[in-house]
Amino acid sequence: MHKTHVLAADVGGTNIRAAWVDGLGNLGDERRIQADLSRDDVCEDDVIHILTDFLHAYLSDYPDIQAVGLGFPGFFLGDTGVLLASPNLPRLKNMPLAKKLSEELSLSVFVQNDALCAALGEHRFGAGKNTDNLLHITLGTGVGGGLILQQQAYTGESGMAMEFGHVRVQTQATARCCGCGGSGCVEAYASSTAIQTIYAELTGKTLMTKVIYQRACEGDAVARGVFERAGGYLGQAIAEAVKLLDIHTITISGGLIGAWDILHPPLMKALNQHVISPLKGKINVFPSTLNDQAGILGAAAMALAGCD
Amino acid sequence: MHKTHVLAADVGGTNIRAAWVDGLGNLGDERRIQADLSRDDVCEDDVIHILTDFLHAYLSDYPDIQAVGLGFPGFFLGDTGVLLASPNLPRLKNMPLAKKLSEELSLSVFVQNDALCAALGEHRFGAGKNTDNLLHITLGTGVGGGLILQQQAYTGESGMAMEFGHVRVQTQATARCCGCGGSGCVEAYASSTAIQTIYAELTGKTLMTKVIYQRACEGDAVARGVFERAGGYLGQAIAEAVKLLDIHTITISGGLIGAWDILHPPLMKALNQHVISPLKGKINVFPSTLNDQAGILGAAAMALAGCD
Repeated sequence: MHKTHVLAADVGGTNIRAAWVDGLGNLGDERRIQADLSRDDVCEDDVIHILTDFLHAYLSDYPDIQAVGLGFPGFFLGDTGVLLASPNLPRLKNMPLAKKLSEELSLSVFVQNDALCAALGEHRFGAGKNTDNLLHITLGTGVGGGLILQQQAYTGESGMAMEFGHVRVQTQATARCCGCGGSGCVEAYASSTAIQTIYAELTGKTLMTKVIYQRACEGDAVARGVFERAGGYLGQAIAEAVKLLDIHTITISGGLIGAWDILHPPLMKALNQHVISPLKGKINVFPSTLNDQAGILGAAAMALAGCD
Repeated sequence: MHKTHVLAADVGGTNIRAAWVDGLGNLGDERRIQADLSRDDVCEDDVIHILTDFLHAYLSDYPDIQAVGLGFPGFFLGDTGVLLASPNLPRLKNMPLAKKLSEELSLSVFVQNDALCAALGEHRFGAGKNTDNLLHITLGTGVGGGLILQQQAYTGESGMAMEFGHVRVQTQATARCCGCGGSGCVEAYASSTAIQTIYAELTGKTLMTKVIYQRACEGDAVARGVFERAGGYLGQAIAEAVKLLDIHTITISGGLIGAWDILHPPLMKALNQHVISPLKGKINVFPSTLNDQAGILGAAAMALAGCD
């Protein structure tokens, strides 16, 4: 273990994970608790209380840990650690989350949006190493994005940058509805949820995404088609981002990258079809090399940078 | 006239303009020459020769000018003044344009993409003053864009950021073809050229954009519809940029802002329909306050910043 190490945590919809991480990206003693932080009635004090208890217990076993990094589902203002809002936690507004946790734990605490943490993890330790600029896409239940510009996390003016899942890839009246209230968003075609829904519509069978992928591998043409179209729409959405940002390195993490062999070819075909001519063939898209640890390693990366 | 003043120039397809500009954005002694810089056979030496002759003659009348700024149609690497490529001038590649002009003129020379210059002009002197982040759209023969992040020009990794005109707003098979080789780009619906073409298709009459606007004002429902749809598509394209960049201030320059009264309402309606919920009603879109001088004032802004 590298001598500087930090505690990193990742808050999901139903559970919270924590692990120590060192400066080389080694990670150990992973612990989880179940905690439903997506209920309407969860208030600021609940969040602080649950996180403090969990992290405090962890820290008491590691007295030499120097800082804490946390990925949280919500919008943060720059690197202030102030949670502006969280779609799943409507009662939380303008909450100085990093400052409050820091007071409770008597340590430096760094907090950022969970998808942006995944981008930071991939940038420091994963497939996005050695790039100044990175667009990272999280491809799971939903589709999210995080942006690194000039080695810095980019949050936008109100912490809502890189709502990549809501890039529109279909404008027809028949475009699929999205959870955001719009239609034709890439999330409505290329998330794990979308793949399950579309496959069920086509076959009448509701299966887990992994099973649909397995069927695709075994020759089920409908299953294969659903993944291929998802890949094509992802490529189209990436092309839209590249037209605006002129970024050449894209990484993708999340459960769906298990289907990379089927997703990648149509993704690259659509991407190269839709980017402007001089960029055709110049954009690289890589699967995460961090398994499902991009987010927690990104939370660690913030804390490690804070210790430098 | 403010004491620091610079020479600013703007290279268009068929003519080149130059004027002195002071630190308050006052502009004077505007001169133009005709020069067709969009021919396939134009080479590096031609460009340097034409620009040097024109700017040298101007400078000889203003011996106290301290720097030169130039807007040029092409892709530039960061603020290096190196022209990577120019769509209309295929023989120009990796040309150190700023450095060459600087040697010829014995002055500091700053060069940047023309649409990005318009963004810089609007940011320093126009409707985008007092913002850290600005998306500026040029709405004329074509549709272009320039992006300011944290008060700095953003060029992307190969000078091709903010190809705003090629954001897709229609994905149907019947989507209009665009000059870029793609289809459904906002430029194919909302540029001056597109407005003329669409109006001609609907009425059989080929008219100048100004005349179509005049007709719209006089009650021609077809003319009005063409502008309204252009506004709607612009709003839709701005929403796509806002989803990725979370930028709250947008400015628009170019000939078409003469039709602001018709364009703006459907633009705002589409924008607020398509941005993510928390940003509805929070994005401001302003017409340029610099008439057709945004580009030349932006070229000046670069040179003025270089004198600081």
